Amino acid sequence: MQTLHVDLGQRSYPIHIGPGLLNRPDLLLPHLSGRQAMVVTNETVGPLYLAPVRALLSDRTLEVVVLPDGERFKTIATTQTIFDQLLNARFGRTATLVAFGGGVVGDITGFAAACYQRGIDFVQIPTTLLAQVDSSVGGKTGVNHPQGKNMIGAFHQPRCVIADTDTLSTLPDRELAAGAAEIIKYGLIDDTAFFEWLEQNIDRLLARDPAALTWAIERACRNKAAVVARDEREQGTRALLNLGHTFGHAIEATTGYESWLHGEAVATGMLMAADLSERLGWLAPEATIRLRNLLQRARLPKSPPAGMSAADFSAKMAIDKKVTDGRLKLILLRGIGQGVISDSFDRTALESTLRHFTGTGP
Amino acid sequence: MQTLHVDLGQRSYPIHIGPGLLNRPDLLLPHLSGRQAMVVTNETVGPLYLAPVRALLSDRTLEVVVLPDGERFKTIATTQTIFDQLLNARFGRTATLVAFGGGVVGDITGFAAACYQRGIDFVQIPTTLLAQVDSSVGGKTGVNHPQGKNMIGAFHQPRCVIADTDTLSTLPDRELAAGAAEIIKYGLIDDTAFFEWLEQNIDRLLARDPAALTWAIERACRNKAAVVARDEREQGTRALLNLGHTFGHAIEATTGYESWLHGEAVATGMLMAADLSERLGWLAPEATIRLRNLLQRARLPKSPPAGMSAADFSAKMAIDKKVTDGRLKLILLRGIGQGVISDSFDRTALESTLRHFTGTGP
Repeated sequence: MQTLHVDLGQRSYPIHIGPGLLNRPDLLLPHLSGRQAMVVTNETVGPLYLAPVRALLSDRTLEVVVLPDGERFKTIATTQTIFDQLLNARFGRTATLVAFGGGVVGDITGFAAACYQRGIDFVQIPTTLLAQVDSSVGGKTGVNHPQGKNMIGAFHQPRCVIADTDTLSTLPDRELAAGAAEIIKYGLIDDTAFFEWLEQNIDRLLARDPAALTWAIERACRNKAAVVARDEREQGTRALLNLGHTFGHAIEATTGYESWLHGEAVATGMLMAADLSERLGWLAPEATIRLRNLLQRARLPKSPPAGMSAADFSAKMAIDKKVTDGRLKLILLRGIGQGVISDSFDRTALESTLRHFTGTGP
Repeated sequence: MQTLHVDLGQRSYPIHIGPGLLNRPDLLLPHLSGRQAMVVTNETVGPLYLAPVRALLSDRTLEVVVLPDGERFKTIATTQTIFDQLLNARFGRTATLVAFGGGVVGDITGFAAACYQRGIDFVQIPTTLLAQVDSSVGGKTGVNHPQGKNMIGAFHQPRCVIADTDTLSTLPDRELAAGAAEIIKYGLIDDTAFFEWLEQNIDRLLARDPAALTWAIERACRNKAAVVARDEREQGTRALLNLGHTFGHAIEATTGYESWLHGEAVATGMLMAADLSERLGWLAPEATIRLRNLLQRARLPKSPPAGMSAADFSAKMAIDKKVTDGRLKLILLRGIGQGVISDSFDRTALESTLRHFTGTGP
């Protein structure tokens, strides 16, 4: 097991990574301050892995909420079902929510914890690669709005994160690849050596080699934790973590958060960001090719869904959270391992990228 | 005009109190960091007072949301209408919400600001006495759940509070008295001199004497700001501000947040807390009589609604936010100006108080 510490003053917390952690009471129980615990999971993860977590909490007043599985349930309405059950069980301010599933479960559960009685504790036990490297670290919680992803939410840090790599054994290949997309993102932003390691080890990772998984998860979490510690509420450099996300969110919004996985949309978004960076003269063409090749080997999509137009992108990107007073901010690249935040790029270059990827232009 | 400063580090903000403040751009505009502003008001306040606020914001990208008036609209569903309009208008993270109305408008708007894109700025312009002395100060935001008041919410501090006493000229007498109940609360908790001033000046206050109003609002806000500065997130002494609220919330929940005003329920709740304190031997009978007389002069209710039973109270109080791991915490009195937080009172005394006030016991 590896343990990282996210340093956020009073809100600091540990991230434990490794196999067999679902059976470790010493990791979970010290973070439950009260007697009441509610595990929120979904209909896929619950049947597979809930038993050991239930056993750990057998001496607590325990409630379990099983949500339907899928991004389309990441809504205020689903959050309300958690509030209903918390109130039906008469849970108070010292209750702890345990998010047990992928990113959707984590985001909804964290948001419910942020709002229930103006904020109660929660713990993250992520069970997908994407959630283990990304959504469970950093305190971003929230739900989608029909007009945009994660538009409603809160910053609310977990008390601890327990990433048991054993739970990845049942993860579908496509979801594993989607998690790899976020891992690649950390290499692109500011860790050239990690990107190079991924170029050498992506096949081991996708074959679920336990050592490769643990190493990559730890490295990605360490990268993210460092960025979050510098800028918890995304006033500045934390925005780097959104590389590929503004393009990606437009894809997800257009496809109704259904047919594309988040990591798949981010993969294509990163390639679009690289393409734009290249058009701006900021990035060498070889870098874009290396990224394209790595995404190819991970069997990640490299272009938006057929039928999505440049106008679709423009419309969706205009309501992205990275818009400041009407001015779009994008994360672009000056090199592999050199992400930059920019709101002063040439808009005609962006138009060219959108037309190039959608086939709706010359 | 009087100006108080609430000291909360980076989240510090001013409270301006006095007449004619709705026309003062110098108070509002410095607190709007971006170009986009959305005023949230209701169908009662908007027609009376919106014009000057609209004029102040005429050079901004301005949106106005007019909510229906009433506590029953303080729901997640109403909050969603604000999210919808924010997204329709493509408002970003630098937008500012302006809560312009009573406590319901302030609580909903603050909660919407806390959650929209994980938190944007907001300003409070309270237009009722209750909101001016209480709900606009301290950063508590939220909405009701069918099973309990303010069960869903967030701590989110405003950028500034502008309390224009001119807006009280159209406030119904009953709402004025309800605001006076919260003012009396501040005297009871830890300001004996203020309680004595109220005993001498309650008639001037209810006659809307401008000097008396400004003095009392400033004193109440100063008291509240001091408590909040010591304990922003209600881990300890801030709970004192809930004097009368646990009993009061039970009344409001039982009557469907409709027929009783919040301040009216708190008035009866404070008297019940005094009665319980007296039964415990903590409070002299004369103190309860003084409180009863003051509530009487303010024409505030001194007993729960007919038909409400001791069992109704017990059931509603069991899901109050002041319940810790199943243990009820109440704010009680050791004297006028001496509020105390207790979870170790004699439960049979509580039963006696409930039976005494509901007429459902011997």
